[in-house]
Amino acid sequence: MNPSRYLIPVRSNNPLVHCITNYVTVNDCANILLAAGASPIMSQNKHEVAELVAAANALVLNMGTIEDMEAMLVAGKEANRLHRPVILDPVAAGATSLRLDAVHQLINEIQFTAIRGNASEIKAIAFGKKLGSGVDVSTLDQVTKENLPQAVDAASMLAQKTGSVIAISGAIDIVTDGSQHAAVHNGCATMARITGSGCMLTSLIGAFCGCAPESNFFEATVAAMAAMGLSGELAEARRLENGTGNASFRTDLIDAMFNLTEHVLDRGARIEMV
Amino acid sequence: MNPSRYLIPVRSNNPLVHCITNYVTVNDCANILLAAGASPIMSQNKHEVAELVAAANALVLNMGTIEDMEAMLVAGKEANRLHRPVILDPVAAGATSLRLDAVHQLINEIQFTAIRGNASEIKAIAFGKKLGSGVDVSTLDQVTKENLPQAVDAASMLAQKTGSVIAISGAIDIVTDGSQHAAVHNGCATMARITGSGCMLTSLIGAFCGCAPESNFFEATVAAMAAMGLSGELAEARRLENGTGNASFRTDLIDAMFNLTEHVLDRGARIEMV
Amino acid sequence: MNPSRYLIPVRSNNPLVHCITNYVTVNDCANILLAAGASPIMSQNKHEVAELVAAANALVLNMGTIEDMEAMLVAGKEANRLHRPVILDPVAAGATSLRLDAVHQLINEIQFTAIRGNASEIKAIAFGKKLGSGVDVSTLDQVTKENLPQAVDAASMLAQKTGSVIAISGAIDIVTDGSQHAAVHNGCATMARITGSGCMLTSLIGAFCGCAPESNFFEATVAAMAAMGLSGELAEARRLENGTGNASFRTDLIDAMFNLTEHVLDRGARIEMV
Repeated sequence: MNPSRYLIPVRSNNPLVHCITNYVTVNDCANILLAAGASPIMSQNKHEVAELVAAANALVLNMGTIEDMEAMLVAGKEANRLHRPVILDPVAAGATSLRLDAVHQLINEIQFTAIRGNASEIKAIAFGKKLGSGVDVSTLDQVTKENLPQAVDAASMLAQKTGSVIAISGAIDIVTDGSQHAAVHNGCATMARITGSGCMLTSLIGAFCGCAPESNFFEATVAAMAAMGLSGELAEARRLENGTGNASFRTDLIDAMFNLTEHVLDRGARIEMV
Repeated sequence: MNPSRYLIPVRSNNPLVHCITNYVTVNDCANILLAAGASPIMSQNKHEVAELVAAANALVLNMGTIEDMEAMLVAGKEANRLHRPVILDPVAAGATSLRLDAVHQLINEIQFTAIRGNASEIKAIAFGKKLGSGVDVSTLDQVTKENLPQAVDAASMLAQKTGSVIAISGAIDIVTDGSQHAAVHNGCATMARITGSGCMLTSLIGAFCGCAPESNFFEATVAAMAAMGLSGELAEARRLENGTGNASFRTDLIDAMFNLTEHVLDRGARIEMV
Repeated sequence: MNPSRYLIPVRSNNPLVHCITNYVTVNDCANILLAAGASPIMSQNKHEVAELVAAANALVLNMGTIEDMEAMLVAGKEANRLHRPVILDPVAAGATSLRLDAVHQLINEIQFTAIRGNASEIKAIAFGKKLGSGVDVSTLDQVTKENLPQAVDAASMLAQKTGSVIAISGAIDIVTDGSQHAAVHNGCATMARITGSGCMLTSLIGAFCGCAPESNFFEATVAAMAAMGLSGELAEARRLENGTGNASFRTDLIDAMFNLTEHVLDRGARIEMV
């Protein structure tokens, strides 16, 4: 697949992405959306989120803001009713019982288009009430070339159970809708040395899904992950060249997304259908 | 007019600007105030805002934080009582009925020194309860050289009705107090590719009004808009020179305000009295 | 003392620092922790903070977020129970009666490992209920070479009364545990021209105390202050070289922490035992 096919409509259609997200990385999420060509709205007021969802092309629920469960539920259900893509970022889902309950309530009451997290966040979802047991996600912890088939199997089963595209960030990213599976080999270790890499990526998936040709949310998610990982690689090249650190890396990563051309994306994306 | 006349006291008097503002761009608002020579206080706790207003030189109410209506009303009324300048940023005022009600309540209960928004935000105010109908703001949508006189007329009538300086951001900015009118031709398109350009500008108007010579809030607002737009132009020159993107542009814009000299401001400001 | 002795475990042990902090500078606090080699968790939800404290190596309570008193009290008491270091940043403690009451409640109910503020914030604590009068902190306002002995005496008495390491930021920083006292001569004036210098420093003290060899919290605090001040000096050198402003300075400061080596820290730290 050519990921640029999914970047082009973001650049040209300027999709509006409504994010209910956390106060730590919200500014970065807004700026990466603007860099990609999308427009952000960030509101978590339960009295207005339904109206905003109606105006938006996609909704992103980021569980960092666990205070706003009611707003998330109202917005997510409205997005389902209006057939808007809804993306979940289950931040730290397994870290506390509050978050574990929250993520299970969210996936029980809202049909997500895509769910993006790291391995331990996705594992927390796998053991949720709705899903029951039976999904062996232990291979997700350290996805390597060797255990990639097993990890993809686990993620795929979760995708089938949830009806969502499952996207797992790691040294090798996995994306699956239960029938198609991709491994994305872009990215760099410095992405884990800034706050917000994951939140920004999930927001970007919202933008790509918000105007995905033929509603191909699987490919849109793959394309967003490749675009983000590649932007990270370009920023890392600058960091190594200039001897800078994680703060410059954050700036350079958003700049790289701003300047990412279709040609550079298609050439730099390392997407493996598995 | 020489806008530096209004920058000089900000640099020398270090006005304290109390902002009740949103969590998306609050950090940028604080840093642009510091860049200009002012000091920020950001608190939205209704139990302390009155005390903070008393210590501050100006108050900025940014409706991004629509959660904090009570704090905004308490702070705004106290600022009116103490004759402190109060600036309103009616963020997304027309986007939801919650925001429309909020902006009307704010302008009904607080006398604003200045109101700064984009065309659609200002239009939402024009159709408010207190103002009734009769203000034709349709020309505000796309202010061009051709319809500038009509747009100024509409803004001027709104200024007369509200008793506030009305400042409308766009390709051409308009500032009017109902009897004097200025068009500010500074700025660049990349300002719309970062989050916070508008919020930062409104905070800056707070700083400039907070120590305006002879309480000339009209000229202070014009000067702040020229200083912000010029900083954007200087940042855009760097972006084009270095091939960077919107994240570097944000940094460069704040840096440009930090380094803005009186001479550069007066030479670069493109203010047209109309 | 060699401050690198306290940086090394941060780099190698990757301590988890739980911050209950304000929405203005939270992103900077997270990124400076990541720059130093630590990991941030930012949550202020009273229903989960106890669980997060149990998982963390240190807790930082930043009074910017004065909304979250209940979460701070729950988290602080749990940290005391589990013998985790707890650091207080009494932001603007003397500015309003709400904050004065809050800081006194916090120091009455929680035993802090270290308290870091500027002179006026520390003075607000000195006159708290628990402490009574008798601490003459007027010398803290402007710590100079001349009044350094008197200022250290006042800070030392406060350290004895609170049982906390007292760290006062200023042109000359003072750190004392009541029996050992240090003056740290690192830093630069531009640190006061960005928002978050103080908040970032307090978060860093959390990281350094979270894995301090032999639980030497006095030296860990001194080391964190030297590391932060030196990063500021390195960023200032870049700013002067490149003609940039406060926004680039913020980025360069975090970058400097990211790249700070043991050798550079030990050579650049200007720590005077007094």
